Amino acid sequence: MDAIAVYDDGDDPELIDVPRPTPASGEVLVRVSRVGIDGTDHEVIAGEHGVSPDDDDYLVLGHEAVGVIEDANGTAFTEGEVVVPMVRRPPGTENEYFQRDEPDMAPAGQYHERGIVGAHGYLCEYFTSQPEYLVSVPESVAQYGFLIEPVSIAEKALEHAIASRAAFEWTPESALVLGNGSLGLLTLAMLDRRGFDRTYCLGRRDRPDPTIDIIESLGATYVDSRDTPLSRVSAAYEPMDLVFEATGHAPHAFETVEALAPNGVGALVGVPGSHQFEIDGGTLHEELVLHNKALVGTVNSGRPHFERAVETLDSLPEWLLDDLVTDVVGVDTFERAFSDDDHTIKTAVEF
Amino acid sequence: MDAIAVYDDGDDPELIDVPRPTPASGEVLVRVSRVGIDGTDHEVIAGEHGVSPDDDDYLVLGHEAVGVIEDANGTAFTEGEVVVPMVRRPPGTENEYFQRDEPDMAPAGQYHERGIVGAHGYLCEYFTSQPEYLVSVPESVAQYGFLIEPVSIAEKALEHAIASRAAFEWTPESALVLGNGSLGLLTLAMLDRRGFDRTYCLGRRDRPDPTIDIIESLGATYVDSRDTPLSRVSAAYEPMDLVFEATGHAPHAFETVEALAPNGVGALVGVPGSHQFEIDGGTLHEELVLHNKALVGTVNSGRPHFERAVETLDSLPEWLLDDLVTDVVGVDTFERAFSDDDHTIKTAVEF
Repeated sequence: MDAIAVYDDGDDPELIDVPRPTPASGEVLVRVSRVGIDGTDHEVIAGEHGVSPDDDDYLVLGHEAVGVIEDANGTAFTEGEVVVPMVRRPPGTENEYFQRDEPDMAPAGQYHERGIVGAHGYLCEYFTSQPEYLVSVPESVAQYGFLIEPVSIAEKALEHAIASRAAFEWTPESALVLGNGSLGLLTLAMLDRRGFDRTYCLGRRDRPDPTIDIIESLGATYVDSRDTPLSRVSAAYEPMDLVFEATGHAPHAFETVEALAPNGVGALVGVPGSHQFEIDGGTLHEELVLHNKALVGTVNSGRPHFERAVETLDSLPEWLLDDLVTDVVGVDTFERAFSDDDHTIKTAVEF
Repeated sequence: MDAIAVYDDGDDPELIDVPRPTPASGEVLVRVSRVGIDGTDHEVIAGEHGVSPDDDDYLVLGHEAVGVIEDANGTAFTEGEVVVPMVRRPPGTENEYFQRDEPDMAPAGQYHERGIVGAHGYLCEYFTSQPEYLVSVPESVAQYGFLIEPVSIAEKALEHAIASRAAFEWTPESALVLGNGSLGLLTLAMLDRRGFDRTYCLGRRDRPDPTIDIIESLGATYVDSRDTPLSRVSAAYEPMDLVFEATGHAPHAFETVEALAPNGVGALVGVPGSHQFEIDGGTLHEELVLHNKALVGTVNSGRPHFERAVETLDSLPEWLLDDLVTDVVGVDTFERAFSDDDHTIKTAVEF
């Protein structure tokens, strides 16, 4: 069958032929419909992140998938049912995090991630999975079901951020999303649905730009970081009850403290690499304390976040998804899904 | 009556004579028993922090008090009842934070703090208060009741830290307290009572030292930061599920991220001033995200934290409080309570 993989010594994704998998006892066979491409895929391709399975010198890419049960193989699933797979799997034996259905809380080394670390991904015609890693989704979200995984990342981050404010009465009104990539825009739409009165999205693009159009169509305010750096957003617009960091630009984690309103929280999901810089750490530390602020980092997502993401996706307007997904390509032109220009927001490969 | 105050243009606390206050309708009169002295008092004396009331050119110090109801004045209190006053008061009119009994969540400018900002403190023979700012405490904690306010600070920080981990199953075992001052030691004792299996306390003192004796008598491990800086604690001892920052040393907020175990939380209560330094902000930001870590700052405390602090104080062994409170002085020798040397841990003034 067709699969899109990157070789350990390769620079670009390649279309390869691999055997169609056979589900082991207790596993199901899923026929892949669509797989979204994101920044992690680009990092894996660039060799900055990711590890091939032990026995192979290549990694089948793809971790944002939607598919259909092809062979239920005696499980509770039904053939034809639409499913979205979760990303993490036990690295050999199950550990406590998988046992209590919190794979997203497993530390490095205690998980594989399909399409990223130690296990092949979903960018292929068929994959097998144990049923507990599949989330059943309604037909209504099948078309854009590959967005459920990224939305689940935002759902988890929001859940942890809200939990951190649970010891007092927190009625957030303003939220700022850092980053106008597809995850930032999906998060903005999610926050809009969660009752934030005023939402903002920070980017660095000139008009006309399709992401700015989406931001404004959502009723949010576009903040150009070239005019208003994060450290000045609070003064220029308003202090933010929630800041959602989705760029991985390292200084953002710290400037977020300045952008927050008293009792606010910064949710961090972007992943920077090593980056040295100078900060006024005393003022940031003091501001965290004197105004009861928090910074909460989260990674990956678990079943509850996938389930909430299904509801969120189902509630988003069709125009948004149509505008957000700028290209869905077939296997024969899969390279296009990995290209990136000012008109690309989110792409997917269709099998 | 006697009061200990610092003049706006003065360098040292002075014993002054002020009129004994008369409770207004609905207020009670409290006879002060003892008042603890802490780092904030020293900052107020040094002019680094604090503001005198509008109409006065001096501030009566003291915010860690225990006293006895002298005149219940028709309220539900009983004369002779032991009470501990909370610190914050509305700055004129009541705002939403006071209305919902969360004065500790009020931002700067929306509160006075008795003995610190805009309102006289408790270092005097009598003070008046509205009943809602007094916490009734049992006779058993009366002697060391001035420790309830500092313990309540730790209670609030722990509450917020635990809340931030409530979105998943968190079973912390290891905790590190940064700072072996009286607040650090009280926090260490509190954590010991909250089921942490292994506790550590970071300081920079040579043996023999009374704070190290207390740390080890509590069954905790003393970590000398001159031998093992915070950034190396994780490797030298173990990664910490909870780090409690009580020194106000600015880099600690950031090094805490390195000291934490996956899914751990850093609780910050120390208050540094401006302090520029270089960090590997990329690695810290990444570590927050990839290991689901959080930093939670908190300040001040509310009624639930005072009430929990009463229970905590009541559960602490007598030897600990006897060793921790190194000096209780009368008004005639009050200056001794503000001196600081290697044998001083916590002092109080007795009226």
